[in-house]
Amino acid sequence: MRSLTIHFLRPPQEGKAYIETVVERVGRTLTTVTARLIQNGKLQALATAAHAVPRETGGFVHAKMPDVRPPEECEAREPATDRDTPSMRDRYEQRYAIGPIPFSEEERTKEARSGGWIRLKEPRPWDTAEIAAISDAWPPAIFASRDMPPTSAGVPTVDLTVHILAPEALANLAPDAFVLVDFSTRAVQGGYLEEDGEIWSADGRLLAQARQLGVVL
Amino acid sequence: MRSLTIHFLRPPQEGKAYIETVVERVGRTLTTVTARLIQNGKLQALATAAHAVPRETGGFVHAKMPDVRPPEECEAREPATDRDTPSMRDRYEQRYAIGPIPFSEEERTKEARSGGWIRLKEPRPWDTAEIAAISDAWPPAIFASRDMPPTSAGVPTVDLTVHILAPEALANLAPDAFVLVDFSTRAVQGGYLEEDGEIWSADGRLLAQARQLGVVL
Repeated sequence: MRSLTIHFLRPPQEGKAYIETVVERVGRTLTTVTARLIQNGKLQALATAAHAVPRETGGFVHAKMPDVRPPEECEAREPATDRDTPSMRDRYEQRYAIGPIPFSEEERTKEARSGGWIRLKEPRPWDTAEIAAISDAWPPAIFASRDMPPTSAGVPTVDLTVHILAPEALANLAPDAFVLVDFSTRAVQGGYLEEDGEIWSADGRLLAQARQLGVVL
Repeated sequence: MRSLTIHFLRPPQEGKAYIETVVERVGRTLTTVTARLIQNGKLQALATAAHAVPRETGGFVHAKMPDVRPPEECEAREPATDRDTPSMRDRYEQRYAIGPIPFSEEERTKEARSGGWIRLKEPRPWDTAEIAAISDAWPPAIFASRDMPPTSAGVPTVDLTVHILAPEALANLAPDAFVLVDFSTRAVQGGYLEEDGEIWSADGRLLAQARQLGVVL
């Protein structure tokens, strides 16, 4: 998979869901698939995925990997028990490396930026589905900013796109490897915000980018 | 419209096309619509659009508007007649302000960044559809970089997402106003590239963001 876009129509609930998939086109180099997530007979989310064959061309990465301490020197944080956090986060081991820890006593920054090392608690081989899940698993970057509107309580996603930029580097990751995620929000206007994410391997490969539009509650 | 994602399955052709739309959900604050572009019985593109009601919350824009000369001081450029450029570009008046002019004698930069002022030659009121069109109307930013692979001939889009961030500022633009577009590519890997775009009003409002995944030919 190279690209996945999900538009959320309603907030999906934990529990059973029906996923209907349609192969829209199988091409020589590009295959496109759509999916619909249905719960209790109601459409919750629409997804479109582009699967594309790697090609041999030159390239460059001008993006810079954030200069952070290695995972073993970063603060591990268990999900807070006094807040109603999504239980999805229980699946991950997180080490904060960029920005203040949300809802801690640490001083918030002007910048809305948050990130660090993350991996599954129960290791399994890394794949594009896991990267897509990781792209929305970190607490919203806006919680790091003191410019955050005081009424903000959460950031439901309107749409999310994940681009897998280095599938071969992803395939070479050890199942228990941490990846470094770096999320930032540069614009909050009229009740909506954008959040950009980069996902890096420990050896400095830009594995994926993500962008979402979210609702400021 | 707040968000539009288009996945391209094949390169659409100039000429007649059939567009099939489905209202997937009408909600109190969010309405989601999908569309299929069909030519000669073949599916060319899939689109998902989220329409959302503006909400009153605080906000900020940490993104910085590029510091460029006003449109009347920037170089106007008519589409080159000796290249097979898309005739879509004939619809626009473009004034280069960021990066070298593609396929000119100007020295390319390391950075893959290109932008400037753009408006319709035949003015009509600005709307979200026009911003979506503008988000893919500028020559690819990669043409500005000397790190561009020498084989690159074009950049067909795999998927494109446009987020409208300031619909009220957009509605206030004069029909003949220029907007400032700023496109950059930070990663080209394995035959694919990402391109990010920002669209600004002359008075410094961040109107929209765009991101696409493209194929390096």
